[in-house]
Amino acid sequence: MREVAIIGIGQTPVAEQWEKSIREIAGDALLHALADAGKETVDGIFVGNMLSGILSNQENLGTLIADWVGLRGVEAVKIEAACGSGAAAVRMGTLAVASGMMDCVVAMGVEKMSETPMPETTAALATAADADFEADEGISFVGLNALIMRRYLYEYKWKHTDFGPFSINAHANALNNPNARLHEKITQEQYNRARMIADPINLMDASPTGDGAAALVLVPLDSIAGKHKGRVVTIAGSGAATDSIAVHDRYDPLWLAAAEASAHKAYAQAGVTPQDIDLFELHDAFSIMAALSLEACGFVERGQGPRLGLEGVIFLDGKLPIATQGGLKARGHPVGATGVYQILEVVQQLRGEAGKNQLAKAHIGMAQNIGGSGSNIITHILKGTG
Amino acid sequence: MREVAIIGIGQTPVAEQWEKSIREIAGDALLHALADAGKETVDGIFVGNMLSGILSNQENLGTLIADWVGLRGVEAVKIEAACGSGAAAVRMGTLAVASGMMDCVVAMGVEKMSETPMPETTAALATAADADFEADEGISFVGLNALIMRRYLYEYKWKHTDFGPFSINAHANALNNPNARLHEKITQEQYNRARMIADPINLMDASPTGDGAAALVLVPLDSIAGKHKGRVVTIAGSGAATDSIAVHDRYDPLWLAAAEASAHKAYAQAGVTPQDIDLFELHDAFSIMAALSLEACGFVERGQGPRLGLEGVIFLDGKLPIATQGGLKARGHPVGATGVYQILEVVQQLRGEAGKNQLAKAHIGMAQNIGGSGSNIITHILKGTG
Repeated sequence: MREVAIIGIGQTPVAEQWEKSIREIAGDALLHALADAGKETVDGIFVGNMLSGILSNQENLGTLIADWVGLRGVEAVKIEAACGSGAAAVRMGTLAVASGMMDCVVAMGVEKMSETPMPETTAALATAADADFEADEGISFVGLNALIMRRYLYEYKWKHTDFGPFSINAHANALNNPNARLHEKITQEQYNRARMIADPINLMDASPTGDGAAALVLVPLDSIAGKHKGRVVTIAGSGAATDSIAVHDRYDPLWLAAAEASAHKAYAQAGVTPQDIDLFELHDAFSIMAALSLEACGFVERGQGPRLGLEGVIFLDGKLPIATQGGLKARGHPVGATGVYQILEVVQQLRGEAGKNQLAKAHIGMAQNIGGSGSNIITHILKGTG
Repeated sequence: MREVAIIGIGQTPVAEQWEKSIREIAGDALLHALADAGKETVDGIFVGNMLSGILSNQENLGTLIADWVGLRGVEAVKIEAACGSGAAAVRMGTLAVASGMMDCVVAMGVEKMSETPMPETTAALATAADADFEADEGISFVGLNALIMRRYLYEYKWKHTDFGPFSINAHANALNNPNARLHEKITQEQYNRARMIADPINLMDASPTGDGAAALVLVPLDSIAGKHKGRVVTIAGSGAATDSIAVHDRYDPLWLAAAEASAHKAYAQAGVTPQDIDLFELHDAFSIMAALSLEACGFVERGQGPRLGLEGVIFLDGKLPIATQGGLKARGHPVGATGVYQILEVVQQLRGEAGKNQLAKAHIGMAQNIGGSGSNIITHILKGTG
């Protein structure tokens, strides 16, 4: 099995890109990644996307994008794992390069959501849940997360306001990210007073969707000449796991078993422990998911996720920075692209190219992308070579 | 890179399965394949599917299926390449095993189409075309194929009736396949008189959709003990390529460049030529596609596809049997599952388990799955070990 390296990254802003179709958004990120890698073509394109069929009447998305960017002929496929589609596509690209069957691939994610009226988007996002036993009963995706957060508050005796630091940190970090959806510093008081979405989840607990794409260029590490190695990042660990799709079927709705399993696969492959991780781009689609992810990956004991916010561990100057470019909460959450944005932001940190948000110590970074309400989770661990 | 073997196959009938949801249909095929392989679990599940989001309000399909069959926790993902999704999923499973990252996987396809009113299904299938420049102009998928067939008849001076043998052969072979959608022998006269769908494509040129699933179990060849080898089939070659998504953008609308490119990749990897192929499960969604596929893969010169039907080459007793269990035309075309049915039927022939349709000589078989109107094409070459 060949070791896989990331040699190029590209992204578009997460925004309402009214003037661009899904192919144009995808193409922008892909071409930026190729330019960053100094490549003109690739052997395969792996596109993470959840909603193009429902929202843009467009399947066969891999073909569309290959054709649009001038890579007609190149093998291309779409990968879907709900909001985990982006990291799932990176994992497929990693398998392709590791296998020896491809020498250079693009793994990317794209989503176009702004053109659709919000009720339809809410219905589309509910396809990540169990259609027959959750969505058909009328519960929305934010509603499922609200049930989990309410139970968590009851079980572990936290106040809702204790989750504020997750949101405050994300908004603060996004101020320095030109590609972020939101550029607005918020205070604990603003968090406390935000309008309710699905009790107890308020507007400041929930991430904004948007249009966006991010792309990575993957090659075998041993194909890289010495002079390029400084900016190269390796995919040291990659793991994926599932849980029940329906929250009511879960053995413990307050424990992300798939986060734990996928993180442990990635730790084992990378030969590291949670103590070795310098930053963690986690899936803060809702603040409760940030807490559960930190617990399942072994950064804090069960039921104590909010403590890492309250104690400042998760801030840029803390021991385990998260959401270093704004996270889902403020960079934004174009669902099928999010997992690739997360990995791209880890690459920026490991390369030392994270701008004003650059961490002093960034050698090993982790990204975790969640599909469904904790049902399909993919974890990557990256190492710098600089 | 490890050589990959198929050690288990499972399928459901292609039918209107009103009493079963998409998870149940998928589960039936998956569990049959595991039983055939003598396996109880796997490391990954790769699900080819095109339309679950649009027709069943269900994305996150990999998770749903893993959970349903009792494999909660196992990594699972959906692969989409329009009607080529099934073979694309097999290719992803092959990469996973070849890479050394997984030791046993299920690669499968599933589609549930019967519950949707036909106009909605027609609109859903059009998502395989270019949404902005084909579908939005009002052309359906069968309409695109009709344009291609009309031009072909004009350019190469064939009569429509010359395509009859493709349909007659498929219907005859399906008579002995209990899993086929149609069990109805047809004559040339019936072909000639069939009602028009989209001129010049008539009902006998077009394949029926349906509900169905097919699954394969893949492992590294070197993991198989000697005693099992007789029923084992290897994936000797696997190739994929794209073309323009829109027919009007193609350099030559009468040449399947992606079929040619993917077949040549598969030939090269398998170390064979077209002359070595004992049977060919091709993508006869429309009879014109059968002709174009035969030409692009090098079985007959350009513009001469129908000759292989008229001369009997494609029949069970011919030199290159196609659609040996009915093909898309009569076995049926549950779109995202079709590519897996094709490979499964090649496996049956190479194992000597094809029943009344067993070929006398079946050592090397090929399957080719087409997504879009020739825009995303995946070719596999299998070899028997018996």
